[in-house]
Amino acid sequence: MIDLENGRFMEQVEALTARKRWPDLRDMLVLLEPADIALVLGELSLERLPLLYRLLPKELAAEAFVEMEPEEQAVLIKSFSDTELKEVLEELYVDDTVDLIEEMPATVVKRILQHADPETRRSVNEILKYPEDSAGSIMTTEFVDLKQDMTVGDAFKRIRRTGVDKETINICYVTSPGRHLLGLVSIRTLLLSDEDDVIGEIMETNIISASTMDDKEDVAQDLSRYDFLAMPVVDRESRLVGIVTIDDAIDVMEEETTEDIALMAAITPTDKPYLRSGVWETVKSRLPWLMLLMLSATFTGIVISSFEDSLAACSVLIGFIPMLMGTGGNCGNQSSVAVIRSLSLNEIGFSDLIHVVWKESRVAVVCGALLAGGNFIKLLLVDRLLMQNEEVTILVAAVICLTLVCTVFCAKAVGCMLPLLAEKIGLDPAVMAAPFISTIVDVLSLLIYFQFAKLLLRI
Amino acid sequence: MIDLENGRFMEQVEALTARKRWPDLRDMLVLLEPADIALVLGELSLERLPLLYRLLPKELAAEAFVEMEPEEQAVLIKSFSDTELKEVLEELYVDDTVDLIEEMPATVVKRILQHADPETRRSVNEILKYPEDSAGSIMTTEFVDLKQDMTVGDAFKRIRRTGVDKETINICYVTSPGRHLLGLVSIRTLLLSDEDDVIGEIMETNIISASTMDDKEDVAQDLSRYDFLAMPVVDRESRLVGIVTIDDAIDVMEEETTEDIALMAAITPTDKPYLRSGVWETVKSRLPWLMLLMLSATFTGIVISSFEDSLAACSVLIGFIPMLMGTGGNCGNQSSVAVIRSLSLNEIGFSDLIHVVWKESRVAVVCGALLAGGNFIKLLLVDRLLMQNEEVTILVAAVICLTLVCTVFCAKAVGCMLPLLAEKIGLDPAVMAAPFISTIVDVLSLLIYFQFAKLLLRI
Repeated sequence: MIDLENGRFMEQVEALTARKRWPDLRDMLVLLEPADIALVLGELSLERLPLLYRLLPKELAAEAFVEMEPEEQAVLIKSFSDTELKEVLEELYVDDTVDLIEEMPATVVKRILQHADPETRRSVNEILKYPEDSAGSIMTTEFVDLKQDMTVGDAFKRIRRTGVDKETINICYVTSPGRHLLGLVSIRTLLLSDEDDVIGEIMETNIISASTMDDKEDVAQDLSRYDFLAMPVVDRESRLVGIVTIDDAIDVMEEETTEDIALMAAITPTDKPYLRSGVWETVKSRLPWLMLLMLSATFTGIVISSFEDSLAACSVLIGFIPMLMGTGGNCGNQSSVAVIRSLSLNEIGFSDLIHVVWKESRVAVVCGALLAGGNFIKLLLVDRLLMQNEEVTILVAAVICLTLVCTVFCAKAVGCMLPLLAEKIGLDPAVMAAPFISTIVDVLSLLIYFQFAKLLLRI
Repeated sequence: MIDLENGRFMEQVEALTARKRWPDLRDMLVLLEPADIALVLGELSLERLPLLYRLLPKELAAEAFVEMEPEEQAVLIKSFSDTELKEVLEELYVDDTVDLIEEMPATVVKRILQHADPETRRSVNEILKYPEDSAGSIMTTEFVDLKQDMTVGDAFKRIRRTGVDKETINICYVTSPGRHLLGLVSIRTLLLSDEDDVIGEIMETNIISASTMDDKEDVAQDLSRYDFLAMPVVDRESRLVGIVTIDDAIDVMEEETTEDIALMAAITPTDKPYLRSGVWETVKSRLPWLMLLMLSATFTGIVISSFEDSLAACSVLIGFIPMLMGTGGNCGNQSSVAVIRSLSLNEIGFSDLIHVVWKESRVAVVCGALLAGGNFIKLLLVDRLLMQNEEVTILVAAVICLTLVCTVFCAKAVGCMLPLLAEKIGLDPAVMAAPFISTIVDVLSLLIYFQFAKLLLRI
């Protein structure tokens, strides 16, 4: 295995390219996996790309092509002759062709559709009909279909004849003449059966399938949950129209997780790798959120300003504001993130609201009490005794610690409820994480703080 | 497909259990996927579990057993007779047996090992040798191995004879007499070849393999990157000792992501689903972090206290502290989370430090300038003109906006560097997210704020 990370491989590629040692380059590249070839070619300047790409054997070239970034694919397609384009398209699976078309500019799309064979074109148009986040949009139409009256021997003949073009042959699907899904049979079952066993008798009929309009994320989760290698996708009339394979499901899960994590950090998700996105793109994905959160922090400012006189009267309280707001934010963030993750793993749903709130409330009471206790001791021992800060009276410590208990409780309650409510009204729960929760909790904690201060310190 | 989420299915199960309608119950359960059976049985009280479990046909029962939570598995094993235990163990794949053993208390483990057949016991002990996070610990030793002088016909005979016990037959591995890995051949290639083709001639020799001591997360990432269904695992002498299958790789990826997300929110990761972990467990995973962060927020308090006199002289400055700290925290969080996610997708490494810092610096300058600009306008138009707050002079606005620019820059720099440094010294980069970064940025932003205030407002 070649270690691409240390950069020495890239240096060799650059050196050989400079000296035009094409056969040596070819020998180096063919040893790599398609994903790594895409990585290596992606590091080169775009002008050199078509030259090196042409060194690859046809099938490997197509496999590497699928793994490349859209801008590189566009450059390559522009450099292809019509025959070359046709050849590449023939090697691609239908779902990869769809992915390609979704990323390319209109003129390139036109050229691709012109040179795809009629059957591919029909399948591509079929898949493009489905909404972006649906199971239909990520399925492939190339699966092995068998009939229930076939024998195992017939099935093998069919697989041998058509299997080379199918994305997977590990699971074969049994359909009725009306294309309804009747059952499935794994290649393992076929191999362990006799030549003249009838498919209808050995097939698994107790099947889980997805519908074309299901959310692709749910379908991916189900594939993972049930340890499937592929999930059949049926249309509204329960006719089998495609399958989602495990590799595409993994891509969906990774994308969705990356999106969730970005949203949780108040970043608009992009599908580009970190170092590939430019400065402006990055600014565009971050600045609007920062602006929004900055403006909503104004409310915190207003609360503080309106208590300015009380604070002037008892200025020791100012120093504890960051600690109270910070602890509140952290507590809320813990709850919201735990709930968001469980939601995206389908472990909980909106119907669990009461369970979740009950659990978080008890956690909040325990955490709040212990934090307040710890803080009370610290205030009296460190601030008052050790650092001789006379202003930290027992009453001040009480205000701080009571605020802590209430803030922790509110923070956990807000933190666990908001993601569930977001899910309910169709928003992405991931938005309800740290930055958003903190902004709300900041205001809450200040209001609680000043109420206790008024009450106990009479300021 | 049965909708487990709406709860009606569970009600039916409860009702049938109460009326002891075992055959009806059995008929309902056998229609479910093993993962769903585990879910349904998990909802029942633990005393009823063995009763319902015994309704299932042997193979399905074992498959459902694998999917259950450890406490349910323990209850079942205790209820098993020796013969029953033996039967279940025979149905399990070796890697599932290892998972089971890792979760069970010592007495149960002893009983399991006593009743496993000698070969399984040997494999289990072999796998248990490897460290917890290694590829060796998640591999299975049950794969199809072929010899290079076999014909395709011989290979099929071998698969038919041994395949039923193998975790996957989709990829077969070709080994030398000394058990070195020579190549691999997919079931598709076998099916598309002639009966008397020789394995050594049709096998793929350009293979990527993992080593037993590789990090399991890296191996899982590679499986996903290369779209493999299984990854061969070799020992230090490059002998093939096992394979990691895609379903286990997906589990590893999900676990690691859940762990990362938990750490990013300052929660110690546990492997229990959200609603399954008790209040004390949840408190234990959250409280130490809250305590730590609360104590480190003390530094912020110290900074504020030491500038108490200046603040008293110009109390308008107090109201903007939360906005400045919040914006700093959000900026730092955006950068750190983006870097943490790229690190865990292996998109970047420590060697990219300069690239990353250069990119974040430019993003920081643009974001900082625009945020400061927006804020300057808001301060003069809203605070000064609209709300007639005379204290917000142009100089005060300048202090706030200059602080904003510098804070954003520091926050982004700290945010992108700390995760990379953590990775370098072997810590989990995910710890370096919002809570930790905020605490640092809070102190930094205050120091910057007061320096500018001193300089421009001469307080």
